[in-house]
Amino acid sequence: MPYVNIKITREGATQEQKAELIAGVTDLLRDVLGKNPATTVVVIDEIDTDNWGIGGESVTVRRARGS
Amino acid sequence: MPYVNIKITREGATQEQKAELIAGVTDLLRDVLGKNPATTVVVIDEIDTDNWGIGGESVTVRRARGS
Amino acid sequence: MPYVNIKITREGATQEQKAELIAGVTDLLRDVLGKNPATTVVVIDEIDTDNWGIGGESVTVRRARGS
Amino acid sequence: MPYVNIKITREGATQEQKAELIAGVTDLLRDVLGKNPATTVVVIDEIDTDNWGIGGESVTVRRARGS
Amino acid sequence: MPYVNIKITREGATQEQKAELIAGVTDLLRDVLGKNPATTVVVIDEIDTDNWGIGGESVTVRRARGS
Amino acid sequence: MPYVNIKITREGATQEQKAELIAGVTDLLRDVLGKNPATTVVVIDEIDTDNWGIGGESVTVRRARGS
Repeated sequence: MPYVNIKITREGATQEQKAELIAGVTDLLRDVLGKNPATTVVVIDEIDTDNWGIGGESVTVRRARGS
Repeated sequence: MPYVNIKITREGATQEQKAELIAGVTDLLRDVLGKNPATTVVVIDEIDTDNWGIGGESVTVRRARGS
Repeated sequence: MPYVNIKITREGATQEQKAELIAGVTDLLRDVLGKNPATTVVVIDEIDTDNWGIGGESVTVRRARGS
Repeated sequence: MPYVNIKITREGATQEQKAELIAGVTDLLRDVLGKNPATTVVVIDEIDTDNWGIGGESVTVRRARGS
Repeated sequence: MPYVNIKITREGATQEQKAELIAGVTDLLRDVLGKNPATTVVVIDEIDTDNWGIGGESVTVRRARGS
Repeated sequence: MPYVNIKITREGATQEQKAELIAGVTDLLRDVLGKNPATTVVVIDEIDTDNWGIGGESVTVRRARGS
């Protein structure tokens, strides 16, 4: 019954990679806490780099600077 | 003053249906808890089926299989 | 498969009222969008009034002033 | 280490305005709580006006009426 | 830089189990997407069973019935 | 009409500090985007250090090590 929300920057994660995240998190919750995979929900949000900040500036600015 | 976030898969909910969800949730909070509709906020997130997992796989994969 | 998060101030909602919210939201999503109740998840967060702000001040301060 | 999520309606916030929000929130957490800007994360979600409700109706409807 | 929020019912997850979830999700994001563990944030919310609904009823009611 | 959620570790933020966060974020949204303070909602979540991970380990473990 767990609910997991994964937020990442929108920088080209593929359908396959997102499927791996969904499977991996679901397995982890079964292995660590015995949670039933059938009712484990995973939602992935991909966020534009203009809309994600860390260190007081956007990821867009950091990427432009080479960080 | 409540805040409600509804997450659904992006599969064609219409403007009218979303308006019904907003009105329905707002009414429910007034009826059950006496919450003031004027300050009840509802946010609907529509999530791509690649980005929604249940049972360890994406909704895209489940839909393709006919689930 | 929807996921709904309801945030309210912690001001004495009873177990029965919370059950009504869960049932009501689940019914609404079935009626409006045909969503399967079996996989509709509802999570209610009750937030201390010190930690909820509206109009630039906490609900604690507003309640003390009679708002 | 704080995490801040800002949800606004999608009504034309510019890259510069979003950068100001990121910088401003990060500064606020440093000034008020001494939080380290280097690990303060800010995520801005811009929500379609059809998907944002207040007072039991969508912002789309309110804007059309002149509210 | 990812942010992950895991919501589970409050039913006795130990400090060790929560540490395993944090480490496991962080590893998964490094392995699948090459995300830097140093800036991966994981927040676990434990929710009272009265406040978690599935199938239109609370987990408290389901547990009492033996589900 | 914005909604802001601030998540911090539960490490003794006072009622006054939380009031400053609420006022500060509300002012920021008014100054940067012209948002109406009357309908700006701020919710602060304080998270146990066992339940907050960064760098693959909990804040509890990091604090014990002096980080």
